[in-house]
Amino acid sequence: MSTGVRRRMGVEERRQQLIKVALDLFSRRSPDEVSIDEIASAAGISRPLVYHYFPGKLSLYEAALKRASEDLAGRFVEPLEGPLGLRLLRVMRRFFDFVDEHGPGFSALMRGGPAVGSSATNALIDSVRQAAYEQILTHLGIEDVAAAPPRLELVVRSWISLAESTALIWLDGRRVPRAELEVQLVDDFGALAAVSAARDAEMAALVRSLVKDEPADGPFAELAGRLIALAS
Amino acid sequence: MSTGVRRRMGVEERRQQLIKVALDLFSRRSPDEVSIDEIASAAGISRPLVYHYFPGKLSLYEAALKRASEDLAGRFVEPLEGPLGLRLLRVMRRFFDFVDEHGPGFSALMRGGPAVGSSATNALIDSVRQAAYEQILTHLGIEDVAAAPPRLELVVRSWISLAESTALIWLDGRRVPRAELEVQLVDDFGALAAVSAARDAEMAALVRSLVKDEPADGPFAELAGRLIALAS
Repeated sequence: MSTGVRRRMGVEERRQQLIKVALDLFSRRSPDEVSIDEIASAAGISRPLVYHYFPGKLSLYEAALKRASEDLAGRFVEPLEGPLGLRLLRVMRRFFDFVDEHGPGFSALMRGGPAVGSSATNALIDSVRQAAYEQILTHLGIEDVAAAPPRLELVVRSWISLAESTALIWLDGRRVPRAELEVQLVDDFGALAAVSAARDAEMAALVRSLVKDEPADGPFAELAGRLIALAS
Repeated sequence: MSTGVRRRMGVEERRQQLIKVALDLFSRRSPDEVSIDEIASAAGISRPLVYHYFPGKLSLYEAALKRASEDLAGRFVEPLEGPLGLRLLRVMRRFFDFVDEHGPGFSALMRGGPAVGSSATNALIDSVRQAAYEQILTHLGIEDVAAAPPRLELVVRSWISLAESTALIWLDGRRVPRAELEVQLVDDFGALAAVSAARDAEMAALVRSLVKDEPADGPFAELAGRLIALAS
């Protein structure tokens, strides 16, 4: 918002301010609907001055997306201690915080927004997915990420896409409480890993070694209890 | 391929021939890498004549994508009889046939190809997802698709995105046999529905009513047996 008070900013400071203002606007409405005039007005500067710092809306959008990507990747970082199910649940809470804060911009981006198809945008989305993938493998005790077993890679990467689509469907009407979906995604991870382990010895050994450290009152044990109740 | 023998084709016949030739090329290599010259040569006509039928590569790409979308949506259609798990397994086999036939084009499209961000392309992708969604709900006995419970919608739509990403990861190196993934996706569907049912009474009632008709030697019963063996 314009304060009415103008002071001189350095180039980098002004760029950072514009990124912050743009990200805020792109988070509250679809980026398609946000004009450079509006960004200039919210930053309290003229439209030509915006173009002095960013050659066009796409470059400002990419800069804002880069900041959002770094923010999101930072939220995946979780200490390597305590039960796995609870670690993942804390990450899911922070993921939904992010999705909640950036709802319209997140939807527009993931559903094919203005800059989709731009290779810079696709590379940023992929870098966040890769950060999520590497974090999860680290928590599963896989030291050499590039040498992960192919079935584990499939479970982890396809679950990441499940988490993205669950968040997108949630944003479209918010008809299920987000806290329920945070737990559900933790459960889904366990279920997809168990399905893979049910038909593959290598995955079975990995799942058994991970589950033995899970507490009896953690999310995975609770899920197992509920599934047994459902089946009976 | 050019036959060397030229005969006059009607406008619609020529358009259909060009779509077929283009789809074949877009299926074997990333559409980025396919030129109009190459399409003209494969169709045995001149480059200007291609532009007579399609104003540019994007319009020919969209026409080819439309035909591929109709083909894929047609493969989802399955008679409403027999065990659910086996119906879904047959659809998964036809889905992987399609992915196998159109590998490079499918990857390029879903990973952000040349026409992604075009609203026509996004609408086609969404129409195929919607066709898959409606087919599944019909098989689950939901008559009014628009009134599906929100948790069921979440399970079905997020599983569709899981199936897409599983196919994409498979195409990237084919390190797991596709027959294994066809069964795994059927199992994943059951597992995601069970996870949702474990915490929601409406989903639990639906899952119980569906499972009671599944045969003891069908994929869902086999999965349950394998999971029990894994847990013991």
